[in-house]
Amino acid sequence: MDLAPGYFRHLRIERLQRRSAGQPGVLTLSGGLPAPETFPVRSLGRSLTGLGRDALQYDWPEGRSGLREWVARHLRQRDVKVEHDEVLITSGAQQALDIALQVSTEPGSSIGVPEACYPLALALFRARGMSPESKLVDEATEYTMPAVENPTGCALDPAERVRLLARQRLILEDDAYGDLRFGRQHPPLHASAPDRVFLIGTFSKTLCPGLRVGWLVAPPRFRELARRAKQLSDLQANTFAQGIVERYLAAEDFEERLVWLRTFYERRATALVDALRKRVPYLRFREPEGGFSLWASLEESGEDTELLATALRHGVSLDPGSDFRSTPGSRGLCFRLTFSSLPPRQMDEAVKRLARALAEHRKSARERASAKAPVSP
Amino acid sequence: MDLAPGYFRHLRIERLQRRSAGQPGVLTLSGGLPAPETFPVRSLGRSLTGLGRDALQYDWPEGRSGLREWVARHLRQRDVKVEHDEVLITSGAQQALDIALQVSTEPGSSIGVPEACYPLALALFRARGMSPESKLVDEATEYTMPAVENPTGCALDPAERVRLLARQRLILEDDAYGDLRFGRQHPPLHASAPDRVFLIGTFSKTLCPGLRVGWLVAPPRFRELARRAKQLSDLQANTFAQGIVERYLAAEDFEERLVWLRTFYERRATALVDALRKRVPYLRFREPEGGFSLWASLEESGEDTELLATALRHGVSLDPGSDFRSTPGSRGLCFRLTFSSLPPRQMDEAVKRLARALAEHRKSARERASAKAPVSP
Repeated sequence: MDLAPGYFRHLRIERLQRRSAGQPGVLTLSGGLPAPETFPVRSLGRSLTGLGRDALQYDWPEGRSGLREWVARHLRQRDVKVEHDEVLITSGAQQALDIALQVSTEPGSSIGVPEACYPLALALFRARGMSPESKLVDEATEYTMPAVENPTGCALDPAERVRLLARQRLILEDDAYGDLRFGRQHPPLHASAPDRVFLIGTFSKTLCPGLRVGWLVAPPRFRELARRAKQLSDLQANTFAQGIVERYLAAEDFEERLVWLRTFYERRATALVDALRKRVPYLRFREPEGGFSLWASLEESGEDTELLATALRHGVSLDPGSDFRSTPGSRGLCFRLTFSSLPPRQMDEAVKRLARALAEHRKSARERASAKAPVSP
Repeated sequence: MDLAPGYFRHLRIERLQRRSAGQPGVLTLSGGLPAPETFPVRSLGRSLTGLGRDALQYDWPEGRSGLREWVARHLRQRDVKVEHDEVLITSGAQQALDIALQVSTEPGSSIGVPEACYPLALALFRARGMSPESKLVDEATEYTMPAVENPTGCALDPAERVRLLARQRLILEDDAYGDLRFGRQHPPLHASAPDRVFLIGTFSKTLCPGLRVGWLVAPPRFRELARRAKQLSDLQANTFAQGIVERYLAAEDFEERLVWLRTFYERRATALVDALRKRVPYLRFREPEGGFSLWASLEESGEDTELLATALRHGVSLDPGSDFRSTPGSRGLCFRLTFSSLPPRQMDEAVKRLARALAEHRKSARERASAKAPVSP
């Protein structure tokens, strides 16, 4: 494995983000993290009681059977035809994606990705020797987040959904935000093509990420390979965390929690959208339908790392768009805005600061443009 | 990734082991698991109290800094020159090994392994497209467990240690049992060659495996790559488990625990060795110096999956040797005997059953041999 050429730019961004994470004055529109105030700390704590010594011991690679049963039942409610022994418990959705890749793709091949794509999927594809392409490549496996995309917060376009299903190719379906659509729920693509869709899910967005519990449902012919790949990667998912989640799910009404979470995040999304429309009307974005973020772009081009630095100086953070792009964007400057981390009452202040940062950025972009323009005689 | 040719034999073994794991009558000389009665359940429980919401949130890929500091201090006591920012927290030793492989080796290359090798290292090497060789291959990276080998329970031969260090090759040093030598402690190879040794460690044997907390110290030139490989594999090790272990280590005397653990497992090792010498004097093995197991062989050859089936019929389990071999063994039948899982008072009964199983196996081996011998005129 080598570090991809874009990695050092990414490191600059990470350094800026890390520094700002320690500054209490910065309002967070970056990171795509779930709101810690949603973590069910007390119920998770109660679930600890009564966990036996087996929750500290090694376990089989596929995970705890009670948890696999719950995941299968949960997916069946969304029309996925799946039995508990088809569910592999993973160390989060990222590992589920890595395992799906390991068992189904070859280094050197192409993988279809959305134009704005989850950065650690892009980076993983490159690290595993694959070439991510946002233009259609006929023979390629597709990576997609059909229910709610990260970063856009929107569902896959219906025509694109039909096109994807019509092609007889493998699909890596990242359903990390599938339970967090604000409106009508969508059945995963897996429901329509179980023999060629890898379905990837996680508790990171709906319970908490620190426990690292996710899942993978692989097409039947890849199932044993996936179990073996999981074992060779890290033996098994954390037994202790699996035990906590299993007991939590047995004791609590998770569907009720989802209804509450959707309202919780929708309020934040609405607050962000309203503030953006009011304070930066020239910013282009689609209204999010779920998840934690939206995808914004400016007509002006420019260096997005600089934009981040400017924003941080004004007391607000955002995620530069270059990490989300399979090819360097030729058009305007893009960035992700996360609404999940800020209470609605702080959203307007955050966007006020963002507006100031964008104004400064646009002004210097115009100055640079006019400095380059030929001097009139 | 494909399933290796030996995988289906391995699956037969796994099926037998799984069935026996559910039978309370079977005495366990297999599995290589730590004894659950050593897990510090109450102290770990106390360490939970006071963990904040940040222990349920995402974290940076390298892991919690307090934990990294502890690991660095602990390694310095064994002459490893290492600072906390050189320690990467991993999801157990298996993942540390996978990351070391990912960043430093190429598919198609050879990797030197011990003649009897930890099976999930062997299988991992094969899955990553490498060819494990127990005969010397000059240009190869070496995988080794110098302090305590699994399965032998013995240190690397001193001459071999010198030879390994004299070669200017990369070394993957699996130190999973390094803290569990019964007698004199050994400094890791990393202490002598930090620029080309990947040092791999874990809390799985000394605290408990279910939390999946291990570490990797990579040579400086691979450090950033390793951090990135960790992030792409599963973002980060379980924040919650890291928090528990960090607090546990701050509150308890871990060195005292190690002294106690060594005595605990040495008593079991002695009980196994004594019983074997008394009841199966023809069995060949070296007395273990640490760890959880020893490596035994019979002069008679035969099918080791059958031996396992016979042993289970007699109410005792063992680990067939074929999983531990990089090339099918030409000589006698080998198997691993685990002493960590049985209290000393049950060891003699377990070995009595093993003796009966071995007697039956040898008898049928002799019968097969004489049936094949030319009939005298």
